Amino acid sequence: MKYPNGKKYPARQKAKETSRNKRRHLLSAANRGMSLEEDINLSNEYYKSTGVALITKRPTPINVVKVDYSHGVRITDAYFEKQSTTDFNGVYRSRYLDFEAKNTKSNSSFPLSNISAHQISHLKEVIKQGGIAFFIICFQLKDEVYLLDATEVITYYESGKRKSIPYQVFKEKGILIRQSYTPRLNYLEAVDELYFC
Amino acid sequence: MKYPNGKKYPARQKAKETSRNKRRHLLSAANRGMSLEEDINLSNEYYKSTGVALITKRPTPINVVKVDYSHGVRITDAYFEKQSTTDFNGVYRSRYLDFEAKNTKSNSSFPLSNISAHQISHLKEVIKQGGIAFFIICFQLKDEVYLLDATEVITYYESGKRKSIPYQVFKEKGILIRQSYTPRLNYLEAVDELYFC
Repeated sequence: MKYPNGKKYPARQKAKETSRNKRRHLLSAANRGMSLEEDINLSNEYYKSTGVALITKRPTPINVVKVDYSHGVRITDAYFEKQSTTDFNGVYRSRYLDFEAKNTKSNSSFPLSNISAHQISHLKEVIKQGGIAFFIICFQLKDEVYLLDATEVITYYESGKRKSIPYQVFKEKGILIRQSYTPRLNYLEAVDELYFC
Repeated sequence: MKYPNGKKYPARQKAKETSRNKRRHLLSAANRGMSLEEDINLSNEYYKSTGVALITKRPTPINVVKVDYSHGVRITDAYFEKQSTTDFNGVYRSRYLDFEAKNTKSNSSFPLSNISAHQISHLKEVIKQGGIAFFIICFQLKDEVYLLDATEVITYYESGKRKSIPYQVFKEKGILIRQSYTPRLNYLEAVDELYFC
């Protein structure tokens, strides 16, 4: 579209700038943790569009109390329910993948209070059925994102001795996920290293 | 608990009766189709509790517009979004499973208008990634539930020639799912027959 006054595509140009700012914003370390879920969604879109894998986010479960049908279908009363499973699952290299992503502002450890008993029992079932189960943990202040096998987390969770997993465990047993433009978080590289080698 | 007047467990007895009525209700043919989703959920619970498989329903995606924080967290304005994927996925015998369940009141065919383009493209991706993809279709008036490989449905959907899949195709290429008390729909038997033989 060309405007009569000779100006070209003002809307598009603006969109481009917004998108550039958005990307810059996404790359800033401070925002790293905040956008963990968004980064994984973007990475999943990339994986899907390149035919690498199909991984989706489960919608947040919402309990609908009241629906108003007077102007179409509108929910007027509802509340968030706790996810009884994990946030992400899908298929990669013919295998079933299931994982939960969490942030922490701590530099020294990942607090286990971030994980629900439901999620632990869900991931134990995944392992029992032959699926691949892991956690993606973002240490926000360090701008480091790790993939850690769910078995490690389950062991800590069930030992009852510690209330957190030391950062050192992530350094030693986890895999640091490579960050880039696309995919934002190349966590399937880490999956390859941990489960397909 | 025993009551002082000698009466035993009135609450429990009532619960038992309710549960018996519920089961009778569930088994009635008329209700068959209505409760397809519920029957699959019950079957999935059974499969999980017996360690056979882990298959979950994706929550219905809801777009939250307004949240009221004055009395806890309450959603006061929201609307249903279309599921861009299928309703169910999970892991069975180490394989990724993904399927959609639909009812039809027709006796002669299953109308393809029940399926969205998003679901077709999602299931094509599942197949590409080595997952198992199928449909569970309930012919309500016949009280028959079939499992049909997604490839068959995709072929019909993309041919553009027909607007429905004839009942005969389900009889010939699908597998009739055995119904019982538990699991309500033993669809994994059909999965065994179709994908693991």
